Amino acid sequence: MIPIRQNIANVPRPDSLVVGVDIGGTNTALGVIDGRGTLLRSTEFPTTSAEGPAKFVRTLANEIQMLLAAPPISGDVRSIGIACPAVNARKGVVENPANLGWGTVDIVKMLQEHYDRPVFLLNDGDAAVLGEVRFGVARGLSNVVLVTLGTGLGGGIVMDGELVRGTNGTGGEIGHIIVAPGGRQCACGRRGCVETYVSATGVCRTAAELMATHLLPSRLRAIPFVEVTALKMYDLARDGDELARLAFEVTGRHLGRLLANLAAIYDPEALVLYGGLVHAGPYLLDPTFQAFHENVLEHYKSSVRILVTRLNDGQASILGAGTHALQMLES
Amino acid sequence: MIPIRQNIANVPRPDSLVVGVDIGGTNTALGVIDGRGTLLRSTEFPTTSAEGPAKFVRTLANEIQMLLAAPPISGDVRSIGIACPAVNARKGVVENPANLGWGTVDIVKMLQEHYDRPVFLLNDGDAAVLGEVRFGVARGLSNVVLVTLGTGLGGGIVMDGELVRGTNGTGGEIGHIIVAPGGRQCACGRRGCVETYVSATGVCRTAAELMATHLLPSRLRAIPFVEVTALKMYDLARDGDELARLAFEVTGRHLGRLLANLAAIYDPEALVLYGGLVHAGPYLLDPTFQAFHENVLEHYKSSVRILVTRLNDGQASILGAGTHALQMLES
Repeated sequence: MIPIRQNIANVPRPDSLVVGVDIGGTNTALGVIDGRGTLLRSTEFPTTSAEGPAKFVRTLANEIQMLLAAPPISGDVRSIGIACPAVNARKGVVENPANLGWGTVDIVKMLQEHYDRPVFLLNDGDAAVLGEVRFGVARGLSNVVLVTLGTGLGGGIVMDGELVRGTNGTGGEIGHIIVAPGGRQCACGRRGCVETYVSATGVCRTAAELMATHLLPSRLRAIPFVEVTALKMYDLARDGDELARLAFEVTGRHLGRLLANLAAIYDPEALVLYGGLVHAGPYLLDPTFQAFHENVLEHYKSSVRILVTRLNDGQASILGAGTHALQMLES
Repeated sequence: MIPIRQNIANVPRPDSLVVGVDIGGTNTALGVIDGRGTLLRSTEFPTTSAEGPAKFVRTLANEIQMLLAAPPISGDVRSIGIACPAVNARKGVVENPANLGWGTVDIVKMLQEHYDRPVFLLNDGDAAVLGEVRFGVARGLSNVVLVTLGTGLGGGIVMDGELVRGTNGTGGEIGHIIVAPGGRQCACGRRGCVETYVSATGVCRTAAELMATHLLPSRLRAIPFVEVTALKMYDLARDGDELARLAFEVTGRHLGRLLANLAAIYDPEALVLYGGLVHAGPYLLDPTFQAFHENVLEHYKSSVRILVTRLNDGQASILGAGTHALQMLES
């Protein structure tokens, strides 16, 4: 069992090496990290979750071996940290990850059958906030709420320098705050969860809604819904497509309101935006900042900063998962 | 400065005596408590905040003296714990409490001018959750979210056995989650905060709204808005007034949705309902439980309990503030 509280001030030895893995709904990223948080080498492969967890873990073990095979990796890799959605940190297993379509998976045991090292599991949001607090934009801060804007919407919370994870280690499921009762259907089985509006899939759904409610011309109208991605929409927005821009604006306003609520709930020093959707840049972030400013409690207006990750996609999670694995060994 | 993290497992000596004070928008309650959490004696007086903080503190000091003057209080009172809205726990002052109409007040220093004992200040929601976890319905639990249903709506959060209070010690301002963008005006200056719907004042505002939208007959239609109170509405609901009942039902549905969101955010073992409004009983709580069940994430349905305080009004806050004061002395 993984202890729920993890002191992030506990700095690992600089010569320790560790593998950090970030299992995402689309891609899995992994890297070798030293104790200073330097990512010595990294790689990425498609998650292919539809083929089942056993096949996936075999591929992962193989990718780890290949990552470690070539120079200049010197020193022994002591452990592996895995960041994944839907981790039950108390049980140390992955439970029904909506974006992977698996049941309960003991990924630690499965990986150890291929690769005989200690393996530590961490929720992806927790790993990302750990990475950002240790090595990223939130370095040195003690009270941080991180929002992951990927296929879905997740979170990672550090309060007083420690991860806050709740009873089952599934805390911070901020994507499943219901913001629109009776609203959009969510993969969780309910309606109106904020992740159905604020996520890579949410922005695509918003585009479809806007096609219905507005008469704005758009190249999106010629693309089947199933082929619309946040990346395509970003390209269109840059090309001047007004409907694509409006979809990001609507999404940003939702996000800004969410951030204002998170400020009231957590009273953090900083809110960190993380994940693929932040690449939409000002199309998403300008309305986000504006809606945050309009909706945040007066006394947080000057005190709470919104920070945007500067690490590459998945990098904070790799760093966080790796750091976690090192700390678990040394604790 | 009060340290932000307070280990609630630290049990005070049973023979220690302390005064706990709960400053509410309407009444101030205070009591003498021993280290076992027994409330030896308590009293209450109107807060009369309009006369200013100096006058109020003089009255409070006087009430403390009277409380301690009569037998059977034996043993020395070692310190005073004060629970109050809008406490900035980092600075140890009260900052712009909306329901009291004061500015920044150094209540600790002011009280010590009248009464020379260590005084420790705590947010009212934090005091209540501390009281419930130590002596009330949440006794022995480590992950608890408490919702205070009074004039406004507040919260107190215990995660992994410790108070979670954020950067300024103002965390857990769950009353200021915006649930209806552009909705009801809030005393905080914004619109649509959940406390404008779920609170003693919220239920009265809902009754007024229902008078407009429904044709239901009701004795509420004969009472000026300014004279409607949650207590009056409760009496009417018991007498069969359908509009009063509907107002509690609407309020309960809002509350149930809030609790479902808090479960997703915090992953607690229990959500505790605390404060005057819980006296509305099934009129409020039946729709609350139903809306919670309809809106909570599937995997929290069985694991998260909703507990209703069994302590008298303000008692958990008195106990929590007192316990806090004892622990601060002994830490």
